[in-house]
Amino acid sequence: MAIHHFKPTAWHNVLGTLPPVLTVESGDTIVAETLDANGYDADGVQRTQPPNPMTGPFFVNGAEPGDALAVRIDALVPSRASGWTRGALAQHVVDPDRVETLPPRDKIFWHLDRNAGTARLETPTPNLSGWEIPFEPMIGCFGVAPALGQAFSTATSAENGGNMDYRRLGPGTTVWFPVAVSGALFFLGDGHARQGDGEIVGTGIETSFEMTVTLSVVKNRKQRWPRGEDAETIFAIGNARPLDQALQHATTEMLDWLTSDHGLGIAEASHVLGQCVRYDIGNVYDPAYTVACVLEKRWLPKR
Amino acid sequence: MAIHHFKPTAWHNVLGTLPPVLTVESGDTIVAETLDANGYDADGVQRTQPPNPMTGPFFVNGAEPGDALAVRIDALVPSRASGWTRGALAQHVVDPDRVETLPPRDKIFWHLDRNAGTARLETPTPNLSGWEIPFEPMIGCFGVAPALGQAFSTATSAENGGNMDYRRLGPGTTVWFPVAVSGALFFLGDGHARQGDGEIVGTGIETSFEMTVTLSVVKNRKQRWPRGEDAETIFAIGNARPLDQALQHATTEMLDWLTSDHGLGIAEASHVLGQCVRYDIGNVYDPAYTVACVLEKRWLPKR
Amino acid sequence: MAIHHFKPTAWHNVLGTLPPVLTVESGDTIVAETLDANGYDADGVQRTQPPNPMTGPFFVNGAEPGDALAVRIDALVPSRASGWTRGALAQHVVDPDRVETLPPRDKIFWHLDRNAGTARLETPTPNLSGWEIPFEPMIGCFGVAPALGQAFSTATSAENGGNMDYRRLGPGTTVWFPVAVSGALFFLGDGHARQGDGEIVGTGIETSFEMTVTLSVVKNRKQRWPRGEDAETIFAIGNARPLDQALQHATTEMLDWLTSDHGLGIAEASHVLGQCVRYDIGNVYDPAYTVACVLEKRWLPKR
Amino acid sequence: MAIHHFKPTAWHNVLGTLPPVLTVESGDTIVAETLDANGYDADGVQRTQPPNPMTGPFFVNGAEPGDALAVRIDALVPSRASGWTRGALAQHVVDPDRVETLPPRDKIFWHLDRNAGTARLETPTPNLSGWEIPFEPMIGCFGVAPALGQAFSTATSAENGGNMDYRRLGPGTTVWFPVAVSGALFFLGDGHARQGDGEIVGTGIETSFEMTVTLSVVKNRKQRWPRGEDAETIFAIGNARPLDQALQHATTEMLDWLTSDHGLGIAEASHVLGQCVRYDIGNVYDPAYTVACVLEKRWLPKR
Repeated sequence: MAIHHFKPTAWHNVLGTLPPVLTVESGDTIVAETLDANGYDADGVQRTQPPNPMTGPFFVNGAEPGDALAVRIDALVPSRASGWTRGALAQHVVDPDRVETLPPRDKIFWHLDRNAGTARLETPTPNLSGWEIPFEPMIGCFGVAPALGQAFSTATSAENGGNMDYRRLGPGTTVWFPVAVSGALFFLGDGHARQGDGEIVGTGIETSFEMTVTLSVVKNRKQRWPRGEDAETIFAIGNARPLDQALQHATTEMLDWLTSDHGLGIAEASHVLGQCVRYDIGNVYDPAYTVACVLEKRWLPKR
Repeated sequence: MAIHHFKPTAWHNVLGTLPPVLTVESGDTIVAETLDANGYDADGVQRTQPPNPMTGPFFVNGAEPGDALAVRIDALVPSRASGWTRGALAQHVVDPDRVETLPPRDKIFWHLDRNAGTARLETPTPNLSGWEIPFEPMIGCFGVAPALGQAFSTATSAENGGNMDYRRLGPGTTVWFPVAVSGALFFLGDGHARQGDGEIVGTGIETSFEMTVTLSVVKNRKQRWPRGEDAETIFAIGNARPLDQALQHATTEMLDWLTSDHGLGIAEASHVLGQCVRYDIGNVYDPAYTVACVLEKRWLPKR
Repeated sequence: MAIHHFKPTAWHNVLGTLPPVLTVESGDTIVAETLDANGYDADGVQRTQPPNPMTGPFFVNGAEPGDALAVRIDALVPSRASGWTRGALAQHVVDPDRVETLPPRDKIFWHLDRNAGTARLETPTPNLSGWEIPFEPMIGCFGVAPALGQAFSTATSAENGGNMDYRRLGPGTTVWFPVAVSGALFFLGDGHARQGDGEIVGTGIETSFEMTVTLSVVKNRKQRWPRGEDAETIFAIGNARPLDQALQHATTEMLDWLTSDHGLGIAEASHVLGQCVRYDIGNVYDPAYTVACVLEKRWLPKR
Repeated sequence: MAIHHFKPTAWHNVLGTLPPVLTVESGDTIVAETLDANGYDADGVQRTQPPNPMTGPFFVNGAEPGDALAVRIDALVPSRASGWTRGALAQHVVDPDRVETLPPRDKIFWHLDRNAGTARLETPTPNLSGWEIPFEPMIGCFGVAPALGQAFSTATSAENGGNMDYRRLGPGTTVWFPVAVSGALFFLGDGHARQGDGEIVGTGIETSFEMTVTLSVVKNRKQRWPRGEDAETIFAIGNARPLDQALQHATTEMLDWLTSDHGLGIAEASHVLGQCVRYDIGNVYDPAYTVACVLEKRWLPKR
């Protein structure tokens, strides 16, 4: 149960089967520095190119295809006092005949008050003068190497995780990824100080981070898509376009989870989900959209 | 500000320009009896045919095209002790290659304990023995007559409302519909004792209700889609397929609302929504799906 | 087998259960005048409002729910020398980040040479000087009254037909619509001198027409969606959003046709369609998109 | 302008930046043996694993990012007398409530008569006894290495080509791919003796092939998606889900082509496409669907 402090000097723009930067044991904790989505570090220096440069990959001893890698998010601490967003909604989240009314999607800077844990625009317009919002830090892009020798851009996401941009992926949450290669090969980066559902301006509040995660191998855990748990909920994630298909994947994964691990029949799981499920939209911005099928643990039948 | 008790003897399966059953003044309250989605009343007697028989329409004096009709939901009280759902997930909410594993979509009955405010399966399977869930009553289908002389089945929804099947449409919420014909012509019915996001078994817990709503005319309120407000949030609704398009409509309506009524510029509204918005999925079952763009009122800049 | 010449004085913007303008026998032919999509007649006078004013409805004796109405398109003759289109691609048929590069969607006029059967821009730009294209006349919007007392805008389409904007719906083609009300109640209008796939500028070359169709009742013909036949093909139509769902409907309807009328098993129909099917995109512009599942008759197994 | 005969001994299941098996000059012709989609060779021996094993990659001297690689398909000759398909429609191409009626998706074998150029079922059911259909050979999966160090499964497709499963990609057609890495790194395989639109049973008639292609570098040709040309048409391809987005990509690419190479303004290109375009659906089976925006060359304005 070692703690590894890792300061990268090179980054990746894909999640793939690449040489590991560090080998860890199951149960070890990694404290890793990450760049922002455009490759800027804690000093505001651009170290590499976008999109979403990844720190890693980390090889986890004992992880083999057919296992799951549990990633407990212990802490996410912004490592500088400045973040940025895009200044307008993405064109495809409004009605097509309204696109021409949108302002330019300039890079907009925010001041991050790390003592108060709040963000405010560096140059607020009159209506937003004094407008402050609290941090809700999250990891935008993380996951493991995909199967088949594939390598996916950190702009997108798939069964192996990746750029899911989902606000629930923050401190206190544990995520399980299906392992496709020996050692899992875990990558992380693209931290957001905060983000609304859908990532509809194309960004959260992007900044560099110190991220602390604990990695554990769960042997022989059959799952197709990422799963997660926080204090109050369990959730399954689907990554695809359109949203309808992401929702199908997330729902199917939750159904598998409830029937395999929680002992419910499909009809029973249908009753529970039908009347109690919540769906979250992670992002509708990336090449693959992200939908989470969420169930509050209080609705799970006692066993 | 009269209170009208209305007990229907005929129902409609469309929202259209039909003869009103009652004329009310702006500000009046209606206490209306409604059938369940299959046309059964408080005594368990089938009075008419599905889908979703509507009580109404109610003509609201003073409502003209270009106005909005505010519907404050005062109370929703199940009027019998039995509800029903479908016994399996809908085929299109799971991965297509998994459809064949789903059980039959039989009608399943629930006991509604109206003192405790809880529902439980009438014939629970072992894993769900003792499993009880609280009421969260909501209106499945309500709205006003659409424009152009159109008439839409109560199975679907559009700019005029209809079968939105969205859990936030319950007591304490006010919804505004865009008025398209003189008198607005308001319909309501299809109450659910409870429903998960997406209505993924194709039903909430369906039962007959006594619904109390207060109708008010807002003159010259330009809006295209339904809007709503509850204690903590404001929200805008889009109804369309696929989810992506419903989300576009909902986001555009919220953008219009923030820029027209809340005085924000589009870039300012983009900052607020980009980092604070929530999306809810009303249903992914009906011919038109429903997405709500939700903003907690605490994130609105002070004016 | 009478021939009825019908010159309307009122039009409809919905397909619904409306009072018939004429009652005909099965096998009768109607020669009907139709306005263009914006309501202009053969003299270039606007007679009513858009969208797509319909001539009709025609009551066909003997047509009852559960039957099909066969509509043989005998002739489509433009009734004036001027047509119009929109001057740019619709915003939603290009990548969202390219919308801002599109020119305005002005109304553009075309000269229709009815002797030569060709169309050319009235005010061509230099690169299109001398550019002429032949007529391929088609009916943009036609169909029968929908079920349940519904009434649908002529901007959209459904099981009952409507605004399908599909180029194969021209002279020589027979279309079958599922009858939902007594008399079928047939409407037609919105003629195009020509149109590309998808109706991607939002119009064909729109003009007024004299349309000749022969209506026949096919008793007890179970079908859900419109079907058609021309010299070389049979086809089934699905109307929905997104294209994926329209394709599902069209494919399912063709499967039903091949198994019920052509005596194939589902596996056999799968072999034939799998290696021989063609898909046409009628429109991707209207609220419901249109996809046709097309099979050349030469691929049908001999019986 | 050499001719290279290439008989592979290893294959790839991804298109990525992998070591080349052969270096060729611009203008050279390659005669390559390819396996069927499941990895079986001309002798019916399985040599490797699915999906769609690729022959290659071939390094083309002089090809650099920003160029295009022209692939002229000279000949596609099945190398054995047996092919196979799947025995039922894919679940997602029919209405979801009809999935349970589909038969199993067994592997079905076809006899390929290479003299007559026709295919017939090896074990025909009575209705398909004597049913023969002609070869229309095509390449299911081919393309170049993607950018960024990505590697994509041969089950899917993207800007770099891949598993497009589009029937027009046969002898006589030239396809241009955007080059993303030095040498382009060209892969090919997955030949079909024939395929209907949409690849709706999940396969064409799959078999091993001898494929002859001629590769040429076009310097400084800005394009985002694959483009093609055959005797009568030019076409642009979009690969994405859902079909709506694939259509957006294809239309945008065609618009770029008409405005850059053919000298039309956007409004002019809108007129030409609006009234003359055809859309083909390549496949609706793979993770990314394929739509082609097709224009017959006779509709191009004379320059």
